[in-house]
Amino acid sequence: MGVDTGKVRIAVLGTGLMGGPMARNLLKAGFPVAVWNRTRAKADALSGEGAEVADTAAQAVADADFVISMLSDGPAVLEMVTAVCDGLRSGAVWIDMSSTKPSEARAQARLLAASGHAHLDAPVSGGTRGAQDASLAIMVGGEADVFARAEPVLRALGRPVHVGPSGSGQLAKLANQGIVAVTIGAVAEAMLLLQKGGADPAAVRAALKGGFADSTILQQHGERMTTGNFVPGGLSKFQLKDLRNVMAEAEGLGLSLPMIEDVTARFQTFCDLLDGAEKDHSGLYLELLHRNGTET
Amino acid sequence: MGVDTGKVRIAVLGTGLMGGPMARNLLKAGFPVAVWNRTRAKADALSGEGAEVADTAAQAVADADFVISMLSDGPAVLEMVTAVCDGLRSGAVWIDMSSTKPSEARAQARLLAASGHAHLDAPVSGGTRGAQDASLAIMVGGEADVFARAEPVLRALGRPVHVGPSGSGQLAKLANQGIVAVTIGAVAEAMLLLQKGGADPAAVRAALKGGFADSTILQQHGERMTTGNFVPGGLSKFQLKDLRNVMAEAEGLGLSLPMIEDVTARFQTFCDLLDGAEKDHSGLYLELLHRNGTET
Repeated sequence: MGVDTGKVRIAVLGTGLMGGPMARNLLKAGFPVAVWNRTRAKADALSGEGAEVADTAAQAVADADFVISMLSDGPAVLEMVTAVCDGLRSGAVWIDMSSTKPSEARAQARLLAASGHAHLDAPVSGGTRGAQDASLAIMVGGEADVFARAEPVLRALGRPVHVGPSGSGQLAKLANQGIVAVTIGAVAEAMLLLQKGGADPAAVRAALKGGFADSTILQQHGERMTTGNFVPGGLSKFQLKDLRNVMAEAEGLGLSLPMIEDVTARFQTFCDLLDGAEKDHSGLYLELLHRNGTET
Repeated sequence: MGVDTGKVRIAVLGTGLMGGPMARNLLKAGFPVAVWNRTRAKADALSGEGAEVADTAAQAVADADFVISMLSDGPAVLEMVTAVCDGLRSGAVWIDMSSTKPSEARAQARLLAASGHAHLDAPVSGGTRGAQDASLAIMVGGEADVFARAEPVLRALGRPVHVGPSGSGQLAKLANQGIVAVTIGAVAEAMLLLQKGGADPAAVRAALKGGFADSTILQQHGERMTTGNFVPGGLSKFQLKDLRNVMAEAEGLGLSLPMIEDVTARFQTFCDLLDGAEKDHSGLYLELLHRNGTET
């Protein structure tokens, strides 16, 4: 990957909790980086580290070989692409690292293709810690040759893997979120069974370490459940938003996914009726307790 | 744990796929071991390695400080305890490492207590490989001081963890099996979503490695699903048996465990109607395909 980082210009659109540390890691890797953020103060914080702070998104992208967007949702990204795509330089690649629907990722790609530009959807997993440590899991959809060109840039942010054509990165993120939600539900039932049956859940989690039932969810979320710590972490309202996107995608593909459908309904109950929206997603345990007519 | 292994006598009842290699590891650790098996040939195989092969279970346990049973199910263990408990030496500890219902484990303990003997329920996870490598996860229920006495013996077989009072070891095993089954269901839905949505499931599994959605089930069972390899491994009929035990225990405790209940019904469909009983438990993917009216 012998890329001359000093000559590859990058624009980062959206320098919030995730985009900010990502821009910082690109600067550390030696890339010239132009940044733009709706609330300019968050972008200004990066100027001391060598970023060029642009007044407008159009200015930020004008000289960029790669545009990285890290915005709130799919509609925000589509609006941004629409606004600035005519001002991109020839050969520029747009890498959207926001979490969107796969269909929105494909719409971005079509819009950019129409003005002669390439696109990758590259959502991430790993949270703010992963963004800071440059250890993000990066799931990338798009053309293989475009991925190959972008890989040295993405390596400055974490571990990129090409997972298929346009939209596949977002599909992988949805698969990730579906597994996480159902596993939380499974661990909740196991923890309740152990507590009501008189075993020590912490000792059982230790006993199961490294086995088939083990996961970060068992160890971390399981501990949250049995100690009653639902301070986020991962907000339940975001988990619900992601699950609704899984359901929309499954419906579009004509698929029945019964466990994810069930857990979506239960996260909806938890958020809407049990005051769970702002609690950690391990709080699905509280929905299970409620369903069992018990509080502890 | 300075125990003089040469002076602690152990009887192993049941030297099949699991009990055989476990007896071998006890011999390797320096314990004198008497073995008994219903089909004597399986016990005879251990005589070359120093085991004393007994003609009857009663003979095997007569001099034992620790009796380890590894039999087919709870009723078989209870029958064995009933048959030989009067012939145990004073101070002997019975460690049942078979998989039984928690209520059956507590019945064993009561029966042994009536004749003045201690009992631990200590089911394992890790399969024949774990039994051979002495790397079993061992979930132990019973009195703490009995566990402390038995720990040096159990360490010759794997990693023992005391998880609570009598029956808790079996409860932990049930929690393990419930998590495994539901996680298989979650991974099945994720793999189907990825395949139908046009992403590369193997690449996605690689991308998710180490993250919140990751597990041995995602990596191993996920690969089985997308490559169509359902040669066991872990038989679906045993997974179903374990899930029925979880349901029985939950009912006894008055608990509603919706995900485990749902996956139990689906494993029943898979075993009874879709010819799945002898297939690997990752074959729940085939039930999901069937439900979706598709074959691949």
